Amino acid sequence: DEPPNPTLFTEMDTLQRDGDDMEWKESARWIKFEEKVEEGGERWSKPHVSTLSLHSLFELRTCLQTGTVLLDLDGYSLPQIIDDVIEKQIEDGLLKPELREKLSYVLLRKHRHQTKKPIHRSLADIGKSVSSNTGEPHRSMNDISDTPSTDQLKNKFIKKIPKDAEASNVLVGEVEFLEKPFVAFVRLLQATMLGGVTEVPVPTRFLFILLGPAGKAKSYNEIGRAIATLMVDDLFSDVAYKARDREDLIAGIDEFLDEVIVLPPGEWDPNIRIEPPKKVPSAEKRKSVFSLNEVGQMNGAAGGAGAGGGGGGSDDGEMFCGGLYLDIKRKLPWFPSDFYEGFHIQSISAILFIYLGCITNAITFGGLLGDATDNYQGVMESFLGTAMAGSMFCLFAGQPLIILSSTGPILIFEKLLFDFSNGIDYMEFRLWIGLHSALQCLILVATDASFIIKYITRFTEEGFSTLISFIFIYDAIKKMIGAFKYYPINSDFKPDYVTMYKSRVRAPRDIPGSNALNLTALDWTQLSKKECLKYGGSLVGKSCKFVPDLALMSFILFFGTYSMTLTLKKFKFSRYFPTKVRAFIADFSNVFSILLFCGVDACFGLDTPKLHIPSIIKPTRVDRGWFVFPFGKNPWWVYLASALPALLVTILIFMDQQITAVIVNRKEHKLRKAAGYHLDLFWVGILMAVCSFMGLPWYVAATVISIAHIDSLKMETETSAPGEQPQFLGVREQRVTGIIVFVLTGISVFLAPILKYIPMPVLYGVFLYMGVASLNGIQFWDRCKLFLMPAKHQPDYVFLRHVPLRRIHLFTLVQIVCLAVLWILKSTVAAIIFPVMILALILVRRLLDFIFSQHDLAWIDNIIPEKEKKKEDDKKKKKKKGNKGDSSSDEEVGTGSPGMESDYEDSDTEKAPRDMGSETTL
Amino acid sequence: DEPPNPTLFTEMDTLQRDGDDMEWKESARWIKFEEKVEEGGERWSKPHVSTLSLHSLFELRTCLQTGTVLLDLDGYSLPQIIDDVIEKQIEDGLLKPELREKLSYVLLRKHRHQTKKPIHRSLADIGKSVSSNTGEPHRSMNDISDTPSTDQLKNKFIKKIPKDAEASNVLVGEVEFLEKPFVAFVRLLQATMLGGVTEVPVPTRFLFILLGPAGKAKSYNEIGRAIATLMVDDLFSDVAYKARDREDLIAGIDEFLDEVIVLPPGEWDPNIRIEPPKKVPSAEKRKSVFSLNEVGQMNGAAGGAGAGGGGGGSDDGEMFCGGLYLDIKRKLPWFPSDFYEGFHIQSISAILFIYLGCITNAITFGGLLGDATDNYQGVMESFLGTAMAGSMFCLFAGQPLIILSSTGPILIFEKLLFDFSNGIDYMEFRLWIGLHSALQCLILVATDASFIIKYITRFTEEGFSTLISFIFIYDAIKKMIGAFKYYPINSDFKPDYVTMYKSRVRAPRDIPGSNALNLTALDWTQLSKKECLKYGGSLVGKSCKFVPDLALMSFILFFGTYSMTLTLKKFKFSRYFPTKVRAFIADFSNVFSILLFCGVDACFGLDTPKLHIPSIIKPTRVDRGWFVFPFGKNPWWVYLASALPALLVTILIFMDQQITAVIVNRKEHKLRKAAGYHLDLFWVGILMAVCSFMGLPWYVAATVISIAHIDSLKMETETSAPGEQPQFLGVREQRVTGIIVFVLTGISVFLAPILKYIPMPVLYGVFLYMGVASLNGIQFWDRCKLFLMPAKHQPDYVFLRHVPLRRIHLFTLVQIVCLAVLWILKSTVAAIIFPVMILALILVRRLLDFIFSQHDLAWIDNIIPEKEKKKEDDKKKKKKKGNKGDSSSDEEVGTGSPGMESDYEDSDTEKAPRDMGSETTL
Repeated sequence: DEPPNPTLFTEMDTLQRDGDDMEWKESARWIKFEEKVEEGGERWSKPHVSTLSLHSLFELRTCLQTGTVLLDLDGYSLPQIIDDVIEKQIEDGLLKPELREKLSYVLLRKHRHQTKKPIHRSLADIGKSVSSNTGEPHRSMNDISDTPSTDQLKNKFIKKIPKDAEASNVLVGEVEFLEKPFVAFVRLLQATMLGGVTEVPVPTRFLFILLGPAGKAKSYNEIGRAIATLMVDDLFSDVAYKARDREDLIAGIDEFLDEVIVLPPGEWDPNIRIEPPKKVPSAEKRKSVFSLNEVGQMNGAAGGAGAGGGGGGSDDGEMFCGGLYLDIKRKLPWFPSDFYEGFHIQSISAILFIYLGCITNAITFGGLLGDATDNYQGVMESFLGTAMAGSMFCLFAGQPLIILSSTGPILIFEKLLFDFSNGIDYMEFRLWIGLHSALQCLILVATDASFIIKYITRFTEEGFSTLISFIFIYDAIKKMIGAFKYYPINSDFKPDYVTMYKSRVRAPRDIPGSNALNLTALDWTQLSKKECLKYGGSLVGKSCKFVPDLALMSFILFFGTYSMTLTLKKFKFSRYFPTKVRAFIADFSNVFSILLFCGVDACFGLDTPKLHIPSIIKPTRVDRGWFVFPFGKNPWWVYLASALPALLVTILIFMDQQITAVIVNRKEHKLRKAAGYHLDLFWVGILMAVCSFMGLPWYVAATVISIAHIDSLKMETETSAPGEQPQFLGVREQRVTGIIVFVLTGISVFLAPILKYIPMPVLYGVFLYMGVASLNGIQFWDRCKLFLMPAKHQPDYVFLRHVPLRRIHLFTLVQIVCLAVLWILKSTVAAIIFPVMILALILVRRLLDFIFSQHDLAWIDNIIPEKEKKKEDDKKKKKKKGNKGDSSSDEEVGTGSPGMESDYEDSDTEKAPRDMGSETTL
Repeated sequence: DEPPNPTLFTEMDTLQRDGDDMEWKESARWIKFEEKVEEGGERWSKPHVSTLSLHSLFELRTCLQTGTVLLDLDGYSLPQIIDDVIEKQIEDGLLKPELREKLSYVLLRKHRHQTKKPIHRSLADIGKSVSSNTGEPHRSMNDISDTPSTDQLKNKFIKKIPKDAEASNVLVGEVEFLEKPFVAFVRLLQATMLGGVTEVPVPTRFLFILLGPAGKAKSYNEIGRAIATLMVDDLFSDVAYKARDREDLIAGIDEFLDEVIVLPPGEWDPNIRIEPPKKVPSAEKRKSVFSLNEVGQMNGAAGGAGAGGGGGGSDDGEMFCGGLYLDIKRKLPWFPSDFYEGFHIQSISAILFIYLGCITNAITFGGLLGDATDNYQGVMESFLGTAMAGSMFCLFAGQPLIILSSTGPILIFEKLLFDFSNGIDYMEFRLWIGLHSALQCLILVATDASFIIKYITRFTEEGFSTLISFIFIYDAIKKMIGAFKYYPINSDFKPDYVTMYKSRVRAPRDIPGSNALNLTALDWTQLSKKECLKYGGSLVGKSCKFVPDLALMSFILFFGTYSMTLTLKKFKFSRYFPTKVRAFIADFSNVFSILLFCGVDACFGLDTPKLHIPSIIKPTRVDRGWFVFPFGKNPWWVYLASALPALLVTILIFMDQQITAVIVNRKEHKLRKAAGYHLDLFWVGILMAVCSFMGLPWYVAATVISIAHIDSLKMETETSAPGEQPQFLGVREQRVTGIIVFVLTGISVFLAPILKYIPMPVLYGVFLYMGVASLNGIQFWDRCKLFLMPAKHQPDYVFLRHVPLRRIHLFTLVQIVCLAVLWILKSTVAAIIFPVMILALILVRRLLDFIFSQHDLAWIDNIIPEKEKKKEDDKKKKKKKGNKGDSSSDEEVGTGSPGMESDYEDSDTEKAPRDMGSETTL
């Protein structure tokens, strides 16, 4: 309950002989990990784990047992403190009085720090200094004065140290005049600035001095490292702050020793510097391993997850529209922040990326819809609809990170619908289906039917999102291969026989008399291919069927964009350039690759297919307006009968929407602002009705683009202590990016002159990237890869430690079969029952409960409603009954439950096993 | 002097309750590193460093102090041994006699091992078992019988255990009936097969038993791990084998404790499994850190390096032709093994790779030479010469790993020579230059002038090889860009206006009367481009200048081959497929990519430029034969004057040859069969004379291809203990690959029908790969990259720890400037003095001695002749005077000399700092 101790910054200085004089030279420093001064290299080493020798720890223990320990010394300056320490030693008979002068002379020598020199000075240096031994102007040398020196103030390292930090200074060295070591451990009553002792202007709280007879410098050094490491240890620093006497400190060391991890000398080289781990056990956890404390903490975490997921909705779901009401109640307070939090540089990249994804999607689906519906819905409708539905959704929905879009399943349905509506007026029929479906959606909202998402486990989620990713990848590649058909390559072309290749227009033999035009008067040789065919002519010659270069150029653009994006994305983890530059390049990787390959395309100037956006707003078909009138064209029974196909649409939309929402709201995304499944579905229903009236396509959450949206908005901590890994903080949850994307989509009509420079293959490359990227971090995909890996090379996934490989393979196989069935269904006429099949996925998963043990499923599928529910119950009971139920529930969670461990090999958050979370989301 | 102790395989079994009965279940094993049985996963964990708790080590110490220690027990079976142990405990009053039966019952339970099941059985399993808890047929259960069971014999793990290994068995568990722990440490007089106790049929030498009261299983387990880790420690196992009593063992533990490395609990998570390091300190080194012993060892290593490099040549160099004589003397004994060692699967890949490199080189340089010399030397000459010179060299030279080839510098010289020989008969002039140069080479051989290579330090070496790599890369890219010029793309092509593009032949307006042919009778429209131009016609039309698809296709083939090779090469380090498959794919990466892209090319069937090799053997020019007569065509003074240009050629050849040889003979390649600089140069001279007489190009060692040759012949240990890194063993030194490559080159003339399917862009891709690959592992290149890295992201190269970054940058800058000057020289008319400039590189390096301290150069440039010489002297003195000079020379080498450390970040051998080696090579 007391305030936590300040962070300790520890600096170790060693006594060096500088000609006749002596000085204290900084040799290492710690915030959390050790950074050492590389002697010859005159630089800081990489932060690393301090590997100590057991010996030095024992020697340190002896030092503290025999040396002077001054706790809560009232010191205001270094000379005074040193005087006090020496006085104490003489008092205790540890030091001969005649050494007082010599000792205090040594201890008050100047301190020389290893500071970073500004780049212009170091560049100037390169030419200047001839030998590395002449003056080292970049090392600051500080006097023991009271005020911080300019070198201290200029030191940028201060940024890495928390504001409230205090310093502990370790001074070690050997001097001739001592016969036995002079050891002192001092804690000051108040943290005090001791002039130039510390490299940064941070007040000193602790001082450890070890001076000893000559000849054992290495050993003193190790003892210094040991105390420095102890000082930055969370538990020991607590002891050091609170110690009442020497014995407390000794006990602290013993506690530390009890916890240390030992590496056998034959299996490890002590010279290897160990990189800081991604995560270290917190001091809390170390304090209380497996104590009740921890159980409480775990439950707290689970509770937090519940809140994050939109907690408690199902409890209050008895009320009509209760879920919707709660969603609104929960989301409303965040509404203002949804806007101001959107203004960030990262948003620009996200907007560009998602915008390009959206218009490509709009163009592609628009084109396909146009084909499927005889242009009743075309590119223009697609653009308008996307812009309208998307921006409304992002403005008002429960989860504004979701991006609405036409999706594959909906397209298939529309196609079947149009084919089916033979003899019935399509637009009116579709309107009624839309209305019915919208109504059904609203009923689902009102009855809180979204509770079904608790059955959407990893199995269903991953099956569905993999399917969508595959569709993306498949479409991108299909489009690319299409280019080779559309622009056939003349493989018989011989450069030397260029004279043999021509394409001549031949006039039709008997010119049809019915034609009013006087075709004979035409100059046939001057006609283009289109004109020629229009007037009934035919093309003769070796080169007629072929189009040079375009197919190959398209391929280069397509593949180039894809692999460039992939490469630049990875650049984040390279060693080149400062972190910020790399992050910028990685964040904007797609923009850079798109620009680059647009540039390549422009350089060659080839007539590759470009992004063509209609430049005036009017329906694609002339015979339709912007409003569909509901009555008059079809017989009355159609209005009622359309409820049946509407049911299919509703299932499809519901599944598509909610699975995507579950994926977006995954616990590992660490969303703060909670989900709003009911509110989302409500808006999807409303927009469905609006779109139906306007004759626009229907929109639903697009899995791949939504994941891309989330990915481009991820936040990480700026690293604090050197060596500490940046932590994933969460996603920039806001409505701005989504809204701007869709507003941009809307006004793309006016951007047509600029957008027309973007070649389509580049956009297909982006599509391919999106598809492939969204496969990453899907555990199913990781498990598929396991098939190809020999057991000993498999990554150390947690589930592999706990579930036999053959069970994992079986689970994966079931998923693969399901996916294959879905894929086949999608490609045949049975596509109409596709929505029902997705529902069937949930059923298949329920059946797996009979084949797999709950233990195995806990590890592979992560969410097990029954068990979780039980635990949830237990938790509630516990809350009421206190600690009574603990031991039993604890056993169940035991060592086998995924919630306890988080050492899934790559501990980035996408891959970390989600613990439960999902059924607490409603 | 005594034979080393056998390797110990340690298995730890824990007591498990299996229903009513008990059994011993294997829970971990050690050869060098720990492998743990993953409980739920039913699999072996990855080998990892055993992280122990200090606590468990102390507890183990107590156990050995209080428990029963039986050394040299004469045991023939487990029951008897256990009887003896229990008897001893009862004797010592440690155990109540009534527990005898119970204890021996427990200790004789069956042992269940974690063995790998054959794949077909595990596949059958997948479907069978419904719950993971029903029978686990893949775990073998062994009775305590005398003969090894089939499960033991079938266990393939035995392959990982050295033949002479002995086992140590650790048995830990908790039982109800004991009140205090039952501890026994047994060493058998003879290693004995104890039936099914060990998972593999390895005789047991040590047995550690710890049974204790219930409730502390975890602690017993940790103690078991501690003793197991100790048993596999080289030093402790030595103690265990030799211990006379309990105290010796305790002392062994104390020694171990003194050496352990401690990780602070706040900076490391004990749950992280630490990957085995690439290298661990050897037991020898651990025994005698900084003792005289080690100094001796170091010198031994240096001596070894000298032998590897061709040692002692310069000492005996006083004799005329002494170096040559010694080279022959040294190489002769290896001659037979040079042949039989060549028959290995790896050779096939090497041959294919180098063969393709050679013919591409031959074609390229042949073509360029043809252009440069008006076809006096063309592709045919290039092929014949390469085959002849290469095979002779590989057959007889000192270093058969060197591949001879036309090189860039020689090509430039020939070009200049031809331009210069205006009015003089080129072939005769060239013959005389060749003869003079050959003579000069032989003089250099006779005078042992190769001593100059001791001044070829990393600076010169890397400067030169980088230059050559750049030339490779530059040429490959230039050739590729050439394709775009040669096959221009019609960027104005509009697919719709295909009718507008044609190319018509127009007959010349006034047909030249001098022509005998009746040109008017020609059907001009039927002529090809070539014919048309031949007969003086011209081409008219929009498509005449353009060639479709070829340029882009070439680019795809070029870039595809390059990046595919790169990707497949990296595949070696992926997780997929068994190690052997991956090694195969990586070794044959170039073959696979060449085949793949030949396939792609064949699929498209485009008329891409193909590899065309002349199919009959005759000189490229009709007016020359296969022998150049030395007299008659030029005035007499030309015969003498040609000595001057010959001098330039000699310098060029000498430098080119010897630098490449130094690179090939680098110490890090671990060559056993020594170098032969004099012998190499001798053959280069001889071949030069022969080539001059036959009018063939001159040949000299080709840096890039030679490096590729070495790289494709590298040998590594097959991993022994799980977790141990494969060690680089050396290079498959033999003459077979080289000879076959050149024989194949020779008969390529007959392979023309097959080779004509290989597109040139694919070969340029191989070229690019070779150039880029040979840049890897060049320290200069690593240092260049440092410019782009912020200091904190720089890899932990040793030289960065010891030399200030600005000095390193300065050194790198000097190299860059030298390289730039060389590059510019190469591209201008000054190219004629290019050879002299390479000599100048050595001079520049000597000048750097005045700018850089010897300490810095020791780290960056590695070889410092003076210092090394001094050390060499010291060594000699030492040998004579015994240990007298040690301390002084030791100080000099001190902690700052590169020879001492080898923790250059990636410790693969290419990058490891070479220590000296080079000046001891002569």
